[in-house]
Amino acid sequence: MSTPPPELAGLYDVIHRRRDVRAEFVGGKIEPDVLDRMLQAAHAAPSVGLTQPWDFVLVEDPLVRRAFWDHVQDERRVFASTLEGEEAERFAGIKIDGILEAALSIAVTFDHERGAPAVLGRHAVDDAGLYSVCLAIENLWLACTAEGLGMGWVSFYREAFLSDLLGIPAGIRPVAWLCIGPVSHVEAVPDLERHGWRSRLPLEQVLHRDHW
Amino acid sequence: MSTPPPELAGLYDVIHRRRDVRAEFVGGKIEPDVLDRMLQAAHAAPSVGLTQPWDFVLVEDPLVRRAFWDHVQDERRVFASTLEGEEAERFAGIKIDGILEAALSIAVTFDHERGAPAVLGRHAVDDAGLYSVCLAIENLWLACTAEGLGMGWVSFYREAFLSDLLGIPAGIRPVAWLCIGPVSHVEAVPDLERHGWRSRLPLEQVLHRDHW
Repeated sequence: MSTPPPELAGLYDVIHRRRDVRAEFVGGKIEPDVLDRMLQAAHAAPSVGLTQPWDFVLVEDPLVRRAFWDHVQDERRVFASTLEGEEAERFAGIKIDGILEAALSIAVTFDHERGAPAVLGRHAVDDAGLYSVCLAIENLWLACTAEGLGMGWVSFYREAFLSDLLGIPAGIRPVAWLCIGPVSHVEAVPDLERHGWRSRLPLEQVLHRDHW
Repeated sequence: MSTPPPELAGLYDVIHRRRDVRAEFVGGKIEPDVLDRMLQAAHAAPSVGLTQPWDFVLVEDPLVRRAFWDHVQDERRVFASTLEGEEAERFAGIKIDGILEAALSIAVTFDHERGAPAVLGRHAVDDAGLYSVCLAIENLWLACTAEGLGMGWVSFYREAFLSDLLGIPAGIRPVAWLCIGPVSHVEAVPDLERHGWRSRLPLEQVLHRDHW
């Protein structure tokens, strides 16, 4: 990759240092002004029709987190039961969440009705609102990394379980459970690559010119 | 918002300066090393099960862009036909794409089969792969902004039309058409807010603690 001009090095550094953190959380706290900056960054993401269709549920309550963690372990077993041989062995060694160790969890949701019915940019691509929520999550992830914290996205859960657990109203869809907090360090290589689960692809393999 | 430490100011500045650009493209070119940095940034995004399920089709061909632009104008009319009164008038004044003026278009797609069947983290949330593609798009958007370029996401299209136009194989889903390139300037306030279509929400309105 070409070297960016010095004034851009910070952004690229954050983008390339960012990791999906599971095992490196060390408890602790997130300072309120740091959390505010990170959430403002998420909230500044682009959104279809300027709907900002996200909500953030900040979960500190240890009982709620424990209940979610129990559910995630159930779903871990569901996935594990689909694996065999070496794949099953590799998966057994991979930690999939830091729910109990991270300082904070944040559930992120999507509200399809916000700004409806005339959402500018969604009549032909109905999922565009869901896409917006993900853009906010990436802003949060990069802000988190820049602040020296770790973040991990947990997706071993059933949406209906999470909605029940947090009292998320009907019509609002859970999109992510994020674990955030101080970490001992951030790995240079993604966990799944270090564990031999899967390797990163070269960029060239996913590029096309003018036509697929 | 609290002031970030100086070493983090660059990232937050990019996040808050980023806009969905339509009217400010001025043609021109993107330097190859700049484009490479931006695409490497997109490709460094987190992805479920490290699948990196995105592809990028770089579209320069003016005929292809013109064909897509024509389709977008058709879809503009479809949306306009659902509006009445003041809303219809406001929409009439809003530019929805910079397809013909931007230096480059990039179609971004999602491959559900990459890394399948045992995608770690997707057995319970099938859309997690689609979410990953959006994270890559936000990285691209921020890189673009940092490089002094503009980017706009166009979603006035039917997925089947775009697949046909670019020869996207069955099973691969188009997620976005992005316009990228040099701009005269970037607006400080989102287009839809400037045109009185919709205003940004205060962050507090989308925050919840421990429970919805």
